Amino acid sequence: MTAFSYQLNAREKQARAGTLQTPHGTVHTPVFMPVGTHSAVRTLTWPQVAETGAEIVLSNSYHLYLRPGHELVERAGGLHGWMNWQKPILTDSGGFQVFSLAKHRDITPEGVHFKDVVDGSKHFMGPKESMRIQNALGADIIMAFDECPPGAAEYKYAKESLEITNRWLEICFEHHSRPLDQALFPIVQGSVYEDLRTQSVEFVSQFPAHGFAIGGVSVGETKMQMNQVVSFTAPLLPPDKPRYLMGVGTPEDLLEGIKHGIDMFDCVMPTRVARHGSFFTPYGKKIIRNAEYKEDFAPLVEDCGCYTCRNHSRAYLRHIYRMGETTAATLISIHNIYSLVELAKEARRQILAGTFERFYMQAMARLGMVGNGAPTH
Amino acid sequence: MTAFSYQLNAREKQARAGTLQTPHGTVHTPVFMPVGTHSAVRTLTWPQVAETGAEIVLSNSYHLYLRPGHELVERAGGLHGWMNWQKPILTDSGGFQVFSLAKHRDITPEGVHFKDVVDGSKHFMGPKESMRIQNALGADIIMAFDECPPGAAEYKYAKESLEITNRWLEICFEHHSRPLDQALFPIVQGSVYEDLRTQSVEFVSQFPAHGFAIGGVSVGETKMQMNQVVSFTAPLLPPDKPRYLMGVGTPEDLLEGIKHGIDMFDCVMPTRVARHGSFFTPYGKKIIRNAEYKEDFAPLVEDCGCYTCRNHSRAYLRHIYRMGETTAATLISIHNIYSLVELAKEARRQILAGTFERFYMQAMARLGMVGNGAPTH
Repeated sequence: MTAFSYQLNAREKQARAGTLQTPHGTVHTPVFMPVGTHSAVRTLTWPQVAETGAEIVLSNSYHLYLRPGHELVERAGGLHGWMNWQKPILTDSGGFQVFSLAKHRDITPEGVHFKDVVDGSKHFMGPKESMRIQNALGADIIMAFDECPPGAAEYKYAKESLEITNRWLEICFEHHSRPLDQALFPIVQGSVYEDLRTQSVEFVSQFPAHGFAIGGVSVGETKMQMNQVVSFTAPLLPPDKPRYLMGVGTPEDLLEGIKHGIDMFDCVMPTRVARHGSFFTPYGKKIIRNAEYKEDFAPLVEDCGCYTCRNHSRAYLRHIYRMGETTAATLISIHNIYSLVELAKEARRQILAGTFERFYMQAMARLGMVGNGAPTH
Repeated sequence: MTAFSYQLNAREKQARAGTLQTPHGTVHTPVFMPVGTHSAVRTLTWPQVAETGAEIVLSNSYHLYLRPGHELVERAGGLHGWMNWQKPILTDSGGFQVFSLAKHRDITPEGVHFKDVVDGSKHFMGPKESMRIQNALGADIIMAFDECPPGAAEYKYAKESLEITNRWLEICFEHHSRPLDQALFPIVQGSVYEDLRTQSVEFVSQFPAHGFAIGGVSVGETKMQMNQVVSFTAPLLPPDKPRYLMGVGTPEDLLEGIKHGIDMFDCVMPTRVARHGSFFTPYGKKIIRNAEYKEDFAPLVEDCGCYTCRNHSRAYLRHIYRMGETTAATLISIHNIYSLVELAKEARRQILAGTFERFYMQAMARLGMVGNGAPTH
């Protein structure tokens, strides 16, 4: 018996509310997943991550494979034991990082030879290796090893890349050794080309997967192109399985994705911008350093339920940020992650109530955006 | 009616267990006070500080006066409201920092002209100004503004400095505007000279203070000299008031101080060394980077009750520390602060049980120390 199941709880046009069962608990979708690249979410402890309301987190196979090594993590009881987060975890395949971070790549039909940029050591990773790594890491959801073309890829390159990705997907399913307690999600590729995206959806839909991802977005194409791809591709996917839009995104990306039927999101952005002092508001990102906050004893966002807003003022956060206290990064990261987690939860409530479309319009207007990701001003 | 009272609960030779009432709650002594220089304890949120068992924290008047300004803190409801820590707080006077951090000092009978090293701005701080600042910050315990000679001060310098400190103490008591809800502690000075320390104790004992501090230690003199000063000075102080040894210290410093009748300690060291990957153990400091911890799934210290030891392994902490995750500094800081807070609490339990002397010997032996701070090897 598999530990996975997905229930579609409600639908409003393309937008969906669902419930995903995993071996480590339930995930209510739409959902935002905070990222712990090196098996820690930047500047946070796990109780702080849990307090944001996060139900599932993401970690990176590429990084964990190189350091500390997937075998060490396995000996520690897998990622759940290693980092002591007992709720659901998703690992990516390493593919995206091999293509974006590694040096001296040499692609073969079996995978990619590459050099670690840190110590220059040589490595090989392909679909087989990725499965071995992800099976050792033991996340609830694992991802297919794909070739990820840049956003501005030529049609020919995108088509050949998709063929490699498809071949590798078969190898992934063949070598996935824990199908009962780890759900392997195929990844739809095809760059910005609708015929390739369609072919890709048709191909991946043949596999007995518990969910599907849309990859090759947020990799250099414009926001308009990205939204085009998402709005075109998502509705083609099997309606009875969750859909994950990889590496996305901002509050407006979440709203846009949810509108088009995406269920799962991840991004390092909330913690990355927090370290630079940016915090999310319903009206867009603001900068805590700004002089206007010097004597502002209001929270980052009025009525925000996050730990930071319930306990600290903009003036205090501005001061400790300026003093170089990393506690400021921690507190703003908590707020930013909470904002995205809560935005997804609010979208879910609106979908269940059948009021998402209106919520979407209002939230986008507040963010200064219109549909398709274009700013109103 | 004053909100302060001190009860001596038990005594074993010079070592004391006491209870100090303050407007923001009870402090059980001996006690270790974590330091939040800029109104935040480095890398921690306040619930994390509270979870270490800390009953009282320290913040620095000098830093808060310069940035964000004591008047802003006052408008935020004082330090308790500003940083949202509702338990007892102690502020130092700014004197030590004026003498150790500021540039272009010019000492007058009324105080010190100095330049801020950050922006070059000119300032003046003396006993009057320090009281105004500390009354605005609103900590439960505030400190007299003193002249703090370096550890290796000449006798003549130390004597003249003490005369200034004494004069300034009178001015502090005259200008302290909140004597009912802020306890002003005089500071015993006199460098390493016993006759000066004796004179200083006699002088400060005339004031209606709720506690007394020993200053001018851990400022460049040897550990032997420091322990000499403490063991000589502490027993001279009024027995019915708490005694605070400023800026101290390490686990062995705490044990040594407690043995000689010190009740309160503070130091930035537990968080500072944590950021460099050092963690306290009963056998001394260890370095988390060490290769020996690579596959070590034990906690930092077996049976340690801190959050970090209850939840994470040395191997995990080593990995995230090496990856540059500040979460590692957070987790090790939690452990280090807990270690000192808990050491003081354990000393209290041992004093109440009449077994402190034996505990002291065993703990010092484990740390590789003998009395007077000399290492055994």
